Amino acid sequence: MKTINVAIIGVGVVGSSVIEILQQNRDIIQARTGAFIIPKIGIARNIHNKNVNIPLSTNIDDALNDPEIDIIVELMGGVELPYKIALKALANKKGFVTANKAMLAYHRHELELKGSESSIGFEASVCGGIPIIKALRDGLCANHILSIRGIMNGTSNYILTQMSNNNTDFATALKQAQNLGYAEADPTLDINGSDSAHKLLILASLAYGIHAKMEDIIVEGIEDISLEDIRFACEHDYSVKLLGIAKKQENALELRVHLCMIPKDSMLAKTDGAMNAISVIGDKVGESVYYGAGAGGSETASSVVSDIIEIVRSKTAPMLGYVADFQHSLEQNMVLLPKDKIISRYYVRLQVDDKPGVLAHIAEVLATHNISIQSLIQRKPKDLDTHSALLLLATHTCAEVQIKKALESLENLKEVSKKPYMIRIESL
Amino acid sequence: MKTINVAIIGVGVVGSSVIEILQQNRDIIQARTGAFIIPKIGIARNIHNKNVNIPLSTNIDDALNDPEIDIIVELMGGVELPYKIALKALANKKGFVTANKAMLAYHRHELELKGSESSIGFEASVCGGIPIIKALRDGLCANHILSIRGIMNGTSNYILTQMSNNNTDFATALKQAQNLGYAEADPTLDINGSDSAHKLLILASLAYGIHAKMEDIIVEGIEDISLEDIRFACEHDYSVKLLGIAKKQENALELRVHLCMIPKDSMLAKTDGAMNAISVIGDKVGESVYYGAGAGGSETASSVVSDIIEIVRSKTAPMLGYVADFQHSLEQNMVLLPKDKIISRYYVRLQVDDKPGVLAHIAEVLATHNISIQSLIQRKPKDLDTHSALLLLATHTCAEVQIKKALESLENLKEVSKKPYMIRIESL
Repeated sequence: MKTINVAIIGVGVVGSSVIEILQQNRDIIQARTGAFIIPKIGIARNIHNKNVNIPLSTNIDDALNDPEIDIIVELMGGVELPYKIALKALANKKGFVTANKAMLAYHRHELELKGSESSIGFEASVCGGIPIIKALRDGLCANHILSIRGIMNGTSNYILTQMSNNNTDFATALKQAQNLGYAEADPTLDINGSDSAHKLLILASLAYGIHAKMEDIIVEGIEDISLEDIRFACEHDYSVKLLGIAKKQENALELRVHLCMIPKDSMLAKTDGAMNAISVIGDKVGESVYYGAGAGGSETASSVVSDIIEIVRSKTAPMLGYVADFQHSLEQNMVLLPKDKIISRYYVRLQVDDKPGVLAHIAEVLATHNISIQSLIQRKPKDLDTHSALLLLATHTCAEVQIKKALESLENLKEVSKKPYMIRIESL
Repeated sequence: MKTINVAIIGVGVVGSSVIEILQQNRDIIQARTGAFIIPKIGIARNIHNKNVNIPLSTNIDDALNDPEIDIIVELMGGVELPYKIALKALANKKGFVTANKAMLAYHRHELELKGSESSIGFEASVCGGIPIIKALRDGLCANHILSIRGIMNGTSNYILTQMSNNNTDFATALKQAQNLGYAEADPTLDINGSDSAHKLLILASLAYGIHAKMEDIIVEGIEDISLEDIRFACEHDYSVKLLGIAKKQENALELRVHLCMIPKDSMLAKTDGAMNAISVIGDKVGESVYYGAGAGGSETASSVVSDIIEIVRSKTAPMLGYVADFQHSLEQNMVLLPKDKIISRYYVRLQVDDKPGVLAHIAEVLATHNISIQSLIQRKPKDLDTHSALLLLATHTCAEVQIKKALESLENLKEVSKKPYMIRIESL
């Protein structure tokens, strides 16, 4: 099996998570690539107090000039230096993976011209763990994209959610976001819409091939919103969200980031807290929505590693995503859980004779099978014969085998006049 | 530019849409592949009354044995014959694209072993227009998948939605689904859970590499649900959905399709009508949800064509998804709409002196700018000084340039004591 060496430039929250995923999920990554992918070196300004178990250096050239390094992962932030690193990585025939939306907002089209086939990955640059880059580039590629509308910044969405749901004022909500680690010490880019605009520009390049710049588009933030605005929205059945919007009108494209009041029952309106969601409308496929974590170390790292895997696979990914001769990974050996061992809560509908003592009988049968009742309702619908009633009940957790046997026993009771009906209750 | 010839076997609703997309979206497909992709022949049992403008034949060998055909698209349905077609296509070194979930439920692993790199596409086989295959195979490939839970059948979801939202009984809702074209004349596979189970098996192969069979898993349908069950669920803050579930427990995997009561405020519970949605939880990325059209001709065809494009691109997909030397497509020439020309509705918050005549003044300013007010509320929040009030209003549609000028004029009014604040209203 071949070995692929990866250098991680920038060993912060995301960088540490990338190293961790490559190490912890080694088995599944080997199964999906047929390769050992090794995080060989980390580059950091300060190499002390890093909680990673790979060699560290402060010198970027230790990564860029090492012929054994196959892929450079840039997670350092900034614009011009990371762009230079990208150019040098590509010139040295290395793969290049980045989560750096600001750099891409300025240099994505130049990079595209420099990159060879499948050598650049940037899934993590837009909405962290949501694979929206691949969805636009691959999944929806048969479509003219009519619009993209999305919640692309978790910090501002968290603040707006707190203001809407808990009547928290802006300053307090921002402080909460900082305490929870969603917002940076300097949250300016999150709050003023710039972060969302960087992402929108990247998505617009994928969907429309358009070379738009920050200064050409509307970029507004959430700084000046008040609880009065939220209240007005709420009373008019709107939610208030900071959206990035790309909308096609004939041959012209609207690109804008600003607060929106949107209908309360839309999928975007239901996206709360630090979560992100993007709605895309294609001329053939209609609307699809992608929802997930927009930030966070391991969420963003998940996308970084998916790009590393894509470069390693090149286009050698087999149909179901597993290298065919790799039959001994953990997951390949996974067995199917026998049906009877599934655990769930259950709803049961029983049609019973409407007379005293029936409920006692039924409760007894359930108790015999060690099933306890959580709630119970008795009903007499009009279309039922007058001697019958419905018992509707929800159980506590039990195994599939228990409920099945209990239902059999119940069916045999003479007071039960119809085959019992069951629906499982999933907590999600 | 190279030419790729495609044969479509099965020219029904989806097949016709595939031909239509390849023809209508030729420009964007060329931009994204650098190739002319031509639907060269359609194979149908009955070649009369087909509304497509390509040559048709009743003989499958006209597609399989033509050395000029590069890709076979199988949309005929069934299990064994399409499997034989797949084998022959691969043996003849052609790409193979299918939307056939039943065939894949039985033969996917044999096909994987036969297929060479990137030669088989089946995005359309699971949840039509939602790119969930690519999400699992590529986007989430760094993760151990902990669970997949999804609404994978539009017909049954439509019926459940009608029962829940409109108190329609099962038989009537089924008839409505058939009238709307969601359900087949024989809706058995949709209603009894088999269709969802086919899809679940395919997803489980991608996520876990497990070779599970229909007969090993729980497959239950929605046939016996009553309005009483729905009512019970509703009263307990649940929605009732038919879910396909894959859930990892240590080294064992639960696979099951059945009705579930799920919390009303979950993303899946909010997926109504014929729409599909799939929630995936990865060990590193957490939850992501994919929502979109699960069926429909052009929606499914969108995924078929995305697979064709993927095979054609093979290794040549550039970073942003456009072939770099293709600068003359429609979309490459797209221009950015000037900010001022954007049309929207607007919410405006004005802090004004609390005295008579102010509203008249403001309405007059808006009228001067041809902006009409749709609704208006006056408020006196406690934290405002006693001489002031807030006017909150929503406008009808106008251009960005109008509202901007109006806000400038309003800011200059002596009765307006603070810079006006505006939020756009998006209808979505």
